[in-house]
Amino acid sequence: MTNTANSRKTSLSVATPQALSREGGESLVDQIVRSIEARIDDKLLRNGARMPSIRQFAETHRVSRFTVVEAYDRLVAKGFLESRRGSGFYVRERSPIIAAGGNVLPVEAVPKSLDVVWLVRNMFRQHPTQHTPGSGLLPSDWLDGELIANGLRAISRQNQNLLLQYGNPQGSIPFRQQLQLKLAELEIAATPDQIVTTSGITQGLDLVARHFAQPGDTIFVDDPAWFLMFGSFATLGAKVVGIPRLPDGPDIARLAELAALHKPKLYVINSVLHNPTSTSLSAAKAFQILKIAEQHDFTIVEDDVYCDLHPGSAVQPATRIASLDQLNRVIYLGGFSKTLAANLRVGFIATSEDMAKQLSDRKMLSTLTTSDIGERIIYKILSEGHYRKHVDRLRSKLDSVRDKTLKQLERVGLKLDITSPAGMFVWADTGRDTNVLTEKALQQGILLAPGSLFSPSQLPSTRMRINVAATSDIAVLRFFERELG
Amino acid sequence: MTNTANSRKTSLSVATPQALSREGGESLVDQIVRSIEARIDDKLLRNGARMPSIRQFAETHRVSRFTVVEAYDRLVAKGFLESRRGSGFYVRERSPIIAAGGNVLPVEAVPKSLDVVWLVRNMFRQHPTQHTPGSGLLPSDWLDGELIANGLRAISRQNQNLLLQYGNPQGSIPFRQQLQLKLAELEIAATPDQIVTTSGITQGLDLVARHFAQPGDTIFVDDPAWFLMFGSFATLGAKVVGIPRLPDGPDIARLAELAALHKPKLYVINSVLHNPTSTSLSAAKAFQILKIAEQHDFTIVEDDVYCDLHPGSAVQPATRIASLDQLNRVIYLGGFSKTLAANLRVGFIATSEDMAKQLSDRKMLSTLTTSDIGERIIYKILSEGHYRKHVDRLRSKLDSVRDKTLKQLERVGLKLDITSPAGMFVWADTGRDTNVLTEKALQQGILLAPGSLFSPSQLPSTRMRINVAATSDIAVLRFFERELG
Repeated sequence: MTNTANSRKTSLSVATPQALSREGGESLVDQIVRSIEARIDDKLLRNGARMPSIRQFAETHRVSRFTVVEAYDRLVAKGFLESRRGSGFYVRERSPIIAAGGNVLPVEAVPKSLDVVWLVRNMFRQHPTQHTPGSGLLPSDWLDGELIANGLRAISRQNQNLLLQYGNPQGSIPFRQQLQLKLAELEIAATPDQIVTTSGITQGLDLVARHFAQPGDTIFVDDPAWFLMFGSFATLGAKVVGIPRLPDGPDIARLAELAALHKPKLYVINSVLHNPTSTSLSAAKAFQILKIAEQHDFTIVEDDVYCDLHPGSAVQPATRIASLDQLNRVIYLGGFSKTLAANLRVGFIATSEDMAKQLSDRKMLSTLTTSDIGERIIYKILSEGHYRKHVDRLRSKLDSVRDKTLKQLERVGLKLDITSPAGMFVWADTGRDTNVLTEKALQQGILLAPGSLFSPSQLPSTRMRINVAATSDIAVLRFFERELG
Repeated sequence: MTNTANSRKTSLSVATPQALSREGGESLVDQIVRSIEARIDDKLLRNGARMPSIRQFAETHRVSRFTVVEAYDRLVAKGFLESRRGSGFYVRERSPIIAAGGNVLPVEAVPKSLDVVWLVRNMFRQHPTQHTPGSGLLPSDWLDGELIANGLRAISRQNQNLLLQYGNPQGSIPFRQQLQLKLAELEIAATPDQIVTTSGITQGLDLVARHFAQPGDTIFVDDPAWFLMFGSFATLGAKVVGIPRLPDGPDIARLAELAALHKPKLYVINSVLHNPTSTSLSAAKAFQILKIAEQHDFTIVEDDVYCDLHPGSAVQPATRIASLDQLNRVIYLGGFSKTLAANLRVGFIATSEDMAKQLSDRKMLSTLTTSDIGERIIYKILSEGHYRKHVDRLRSKLDSVRDKTLKQLERVGLKLDITSPAGMFVWADTGRDTNVLTEKALQQGILLAPGSLFSPSQLPSTRMRINVAATSDIAVLRFFERELG
């Protein structure tokens, strides 16, 4: 050993913790870890200092070597020590680490002019203490964390070998069988071979768009529509063209005109509880869209993520284009982020068997497989019959808050179209530029979803999307009252 | 009620199960479900027949209505009944469903001529009863399912609200803090803001390639190298060019020559335990690669998925280019599919803070977020110090089987380069076209990984990749003996 190494060697008395207690709640390992951590923090043990060997430490403190190994390992994992192969443990040079905690980010400083990417980023941060009428999800306390926790526990008791290896690239088979049943209830016939699971509908859209669209090709979307896909399609070099959305579906004359002009590859549409207007497609329009798609030979991508929040055709008509077409010209996308848990990242594509194979290969090239965990949790919830009851409860709860919220919003100055209220959103007119309103709101901890986000033109708009489940909140109402009164 | 509906109504005596038992282990719900299932299977209850109402059933059998609701719900979820809103429950028309079970697919019928996509598909199927010397993963019984199960249980006890909402698009913060420590051990300084989690390294490669390469651009890979990325890059319209891989890294003269010729955007390389040869980069070559990258201004993507299987520089030298360059020109990719569990789908990108933000935005556009579940499980394993012990065990186990396996393989006629044995693969020369060998092997339930897969040229090769952990199997050895003897 050189002199330098020797001089940096820590004397036992400094390195070792105070007397260890065999009583009380704290394990020996915990006591050693805590005590060494404190000594490093207090600079009693310095960067680069060599720790006593495991044998030395164990003998001095009359603890087993296993206890010391475990304590040292934890200190390595926490960044206090480092292990040098064949040489022992050393106090490591530490870079500052933010206290480990929740997964919560502060809102980024508001930039000088409104930046859509910045808004979208904030959209997907978590705002536990914030007011989020602009959110696209139901509040956590509406959902059922216990259902998910039960699923996790059930999987922890299953054969773990399934998790150690890659899953099936097309998605877990029992889960796809359950999806077959779910689709059959919507009068869409699809065998498990026609289904590919995805990491949420977002991945489904990405895979389909990458399959169909070359740079320069046109993709139709509704205007307004879900904003994230505009960016996704734009990165493919696709031209994104909006079709004006009316209360019963797209403006058919405009669709026919633009289809002749642009020869689009895809038309992405929410037939049921359209985001952001919560309106649904009429049967007549569903039929007309299909005819135009046949005439101009484009594929319809039916994003049905709000499916299970639909209140039934007695309240609001709803026709899925896939029910008419049976997955010939229609690629149907579904998911569980809105009704169960966004973080499970489980969605699916239903299409022809041949296209399912091609999209599954494409999924393999971009994420290999999706994790079975979310799929198995949802399989359990579906197959044990919990899902239907759960979504029935969500719908009743939405119905029970919607009327009151809409009245409150009208009272504070918003104009709403509430001829057929359903779903979780209302598309409200403020009479002001909602980009400006959104900036002001963010400074007060309120997240809004301005109309500009929802249009492929990204032009300022007086509209905004309001989540009726996250709005009847005195701070939000007062803000609108002040700004719009 | 019309006559037709009336005639299809099921009489109570047929629909209802035999006397229910309040004793014994089976719950009332289970008894009702089982009995109605049996009656439907036996055609005692016919397609379209209406079930007794919940009230009727509950009264007849003196069970609570909740019991009946739960039983009917389960039968709906299992596809035996369907519920028609406002009308009641009916026996549904059932399409044949494969018995729910494992996630295991049969091997597809061998096509007439070897098809690389077909081979890759089979590569990612599970072959529980098969011999898989061509597999890219360690066998399940080498890995630690209990570690993963413990993680699942721990998460089921945590605050479920985190799972109900979207996660942080850049990845869970505590997990990224652990990755900071892991990278610091490799002498790569990266704050959590420089890290983006991905769905395995596959998604990392896809995101980086999409960010840097436009159609027509060139991406360099090693030849041989991991096959999946060739397809992934090809779908982007990129030109994939292979750099010959020598035992201590790429052929530097050829790299310089081809860089001048093609002006590549990216060079993707395994520095440590290269797939498929298990060789590692020398310090000198790491430096030379960086110089060439600077000269021709391309980015290096260092895929370090085999990192934790490296036996230490005493056994085999290993230099990471990112340790020299500190994430300026190098984008570093890591993951846990090889050492913990492929199905968790957890990988990560480490890069500059600005690039991390851009790649995180791109990730948002293609899968929104990745699930926190896998990240939290691995966070727990890393932070509690289990990971280091686990990978130490894996390395010892590899060391303990490697010698024997290599000797057996040489005895049955394979030529191996074993000057510096390490990692899980050996790149073996059979002296035969391994495409032909692979077809024969598959007919006997043996999965091989022929050399053609690993070259961007996809030309037939006499080489193949052998997983030393999955080969010392009498069926496999006999096959080689017969074919090569």
